[in-house]
Amino acid sequence: MVDESGSGGRPTRRAFLTMSGMTVLGAALATDPTARAAASSGLDASIPFYGDHQAGIATEAQNYLCFAAFDLAAQTALDIAHLLRMWSQAAALMSAGQQVRGTNTVQADAPEDTGEAFGLPAANLTVTFGFGPSMFQIDGQDRFGLMSRQPEALRALPAFPGDALDPSISDGDVCIQACADDPQIAFHAVHNLWRLALGAVSMRWMQMGFGRTATTSSRQASARNLMGFKDGTDNIRGDDAAAMKRFVWSGSEAPAWMQGGTYVVCRRILIFLEPWDLSSLHDQEATFGRRKASGAPLSGRKEYDPPDLKAIGADGKPVIPTDAHIRLASPSYNRGERILRRGYSFNDVSGSGTRAPNSGLFFICFQRDPRAQFARIQSRLALSDHLSQFVEHTGSALFAVPPGAAVGSFVGASLLS
Amino acid sequence: MVDESGSGGRPTRRAFLTMSGMTVLGAALATDPTARAAASSGLDASIPFYGDHQAGIATEAQNYLCFAAFDLAAQTALDIAHLLRMWSQAAALMSAGQQVRGTNTVQADAPEDTGEAFGLPAANLTVTFGFGPSMFQIDGQDRFGLMSRQPEALRALPAFPGDALDPSISDGDVCIQACADDPQIAFHAVHNLWRLALGAVSMRWMQMGFGRTATTSSRQASARNLMGFKDGTDNIRGDDAAAMKRFVWSGSEAPAWMQGGTYVVCRRILIFLEPWDLSSLHDQEATFGRRKASGAPLSGRKEYDPPDLKAIGADGKPVIPTDAHIRLASPSYNRGERILRRGYSFNDVSGSGTRAPNSGLFFICFQRDPRAQFARIQSRLALSDHLSQFVEHTGSALFAVPPGAAVGSFVGASLLS
Repeated sequence: MVDESGSGGRPTRRAFLTMSGMTVLGAALATDPTARAAASSGLDASIPFYGDHQAGIATEAQNYLCFAAFDLAAQTALDIAHLLRMWSQAAALMSAGQQVRGTNTVQADAPEDTGEAFGLPAANLTVTFGFGPSMFQIDGQDRFGLMSRQPEALRALPAFPGDALDPSISDGDVCIQACADDPQIAFHAVHNLWRLALGAVSMRWMQMGFGRTATTSSRQASARNLMGFKDGTDNIRGDDAAAMKRFVWSGSEAPAWMQGGTYVVCRRILIFLEPWDLSSLHDQEATFGRRKASGAPLSGRKEYDPPDLKAIGADGKPVIPTDAHIRLASPSYNRGERILRRGYSFNDVSGSGTRAPNSGLFFICFQRDPRAQFARIQSRLALSDHLSQFVEHTGSALFAVPPGAAVGSFVGASLLS
Repeated sequence: MVDESGSGGRPTRRAFLTMSGMTVLGAALATDPTARAAASSGLDASIPFYGDHQAGIATEAQNYLCFAAFDLAAQTALDIAHLLRMWSQAAALMSAGQQVRGTNTVQADAPEDTGEAFGLPAANLTVTFGFGPSMFQIDGQDRFGLMSRQPEALRALPAFPGDALDPSISDGDVCIQACADDPQIAFHAVHNLWRLALGAVSMRWMQMGFGRTATTSSRQASARNLMGFKDGTDNIRGDDAAAMKRFVWSGSEAPAWMQGGTYVVCRRILIFLEPWDLSSLHDQEATFGRRKASGAPLSGRKEYDPPDLKAIGADGKPVIPTDAHIRLASPSYNRGERILRRGYSFNDVSGSGTRAPNSGLFFICFQRDPRAQFARIQSRLALSDHLSQFVEHTGSALFAVPPGAAVGSFVGASLLS
């Protein structure tokens, strides 16, 4: 049988010293930014990796997701800097539709790129990196000398009523979000970044998603979640600069290294499709507060009619029920707070101890302060949202997403170099 | 909390008598075949459900898969006939890009269609039904009076060396293979067929797939599996009528009800990506017997050059190694037998007790006799194929795939009516 050492538990440092020694070579191969300016439409389109903000946040949501979280075997912050430099260079190449090259530090005669994207276009690939609370400390242990730089906003989320979290698919020291309009491209990106870091990280969990559920651009039509409803109608649009500045991008409240960054919360939300599918159309629409076919609020006629939360029906009751999802999630019920959602549907294999179907929503949201935004909203939803009867949160993670990198630099440089 | 009765274990007969009573209505709503003749290209294209053979076998492989297996709660063969009639009608509607309607037997005021495909095109959806050995008997128990009609070719597969099968993701009384060029469409099809059958079946397992790995049409270019190699170069093409007749479609050797049908074998094959990724390019190419970039056999220069299994290199050794995958899987090593492969890559969430990444190939093959074809080939591969060191079979299933249905009839009518 093959050697599987290093595939379970915390990784060893195998190959990592070699990797660190190779970054000089890697730096010399930083991609030519002019090659990445030529975005086109459709699957041939590419999105620049470098910029003020990381790509994959304000970017118009692609159709497919591959998200993974890793635990670090690095010994020092410098090791992590080497890792992020190499990852940034490889992510820039792949975002331009190119193969990984110039960073082959794992085994000299192995292919530099794993190959499953040979001949495929960039497909709007974006790669977004984040740092979990455990990179800064575990139970007060200052693992890498970074504890003093942990943002206040990067503290473990509170427990919410009804949480059924599986630690093996929660949390992590670092994360990679890869989004693309071809799942093979998204998978390839995470696969290659993991491979480059063998010995420096161990993969903690990985989640694929399809059918982007959130509208994140004013050019995009709403898509439907697996409950059949349009999702994200009231979402922040990535091209709404004012809303992005107010609700998403970290400002002067954050440590200097995080300004221009944001925080991402992931929740793996299992949907109980059977009871949902047996619910009446009336109950389904009352649960969301919207019409199923049109997406219109129950108080309106068209999808983008603003919900009238004060409307009273002929029966003397609120038209949008008191426990409707759009009421309880609305800014007016949450001190005006909003979040940028960027979730995907999933359907994983079932198996021993897992119900079939194993389907749901991999919820992703970006915000400036998870305590004031996601946690506040979710506290209310978990208690009162009628929708919460049909779902169960089985995974959870929080990461600081640092600002973007300039060409020649790397994501995380503001913290690590 | 919601009522989840019926979601675990064998299903109850809840709603099923109602369902049976509704089939007269359902029959009246059989779709107009002329509406389904107008196939176009791209996502708007549709593939007729009705025909001599079921769709989804010879059909040019779509990019996405949703496969599910179910256990029956039915009491009689007539119950199963009602189920297959309803499933066929709904599958025909969805294959034409239409919503499910006219078969709402589960709960009168619930939506007839679960809705996540509202507004989406047909996306080349095909729905293919199959019957497992356990539908005919379990340990000699004649469950539905069908035991005497079980085909000789539909006997449990032998155990193969290295098998690590999880019973919870193996086997099943009936199966549905949905393929489409949009995973939301493929999921929607299985979701709705499951919903229509609530009370009559319980879902046993379900598997999504992306990145079709097999070429199944002379118009199609080869795609790559997650090991980075082109797959299916030597596959039977669905438009090769002679090969389909010889190797895939059941003939006079089969019971009358199966003639024009076929047998499908599914194997969930986990790939150990870490040791594979660390292998040298030389070893990877020797493992498959092909070049990674071009797909050419090691004995040739281009992908479609016929492999020369007798070629000897300058070192006096076979150019295509004795344990290379393409040698051991080749017809000349397997009494001339071939199979029609139609597999997909997968990457499911990892979790407690599951390695990350949880990636591999959901292998699907169609053939006239699984004993003489898949089982013979796999027996050799499991013992000697160098590739078997990098993979593990974790799920397995076998189903008889009956011939197609004429408009107004249903798949399985030749057995059940």
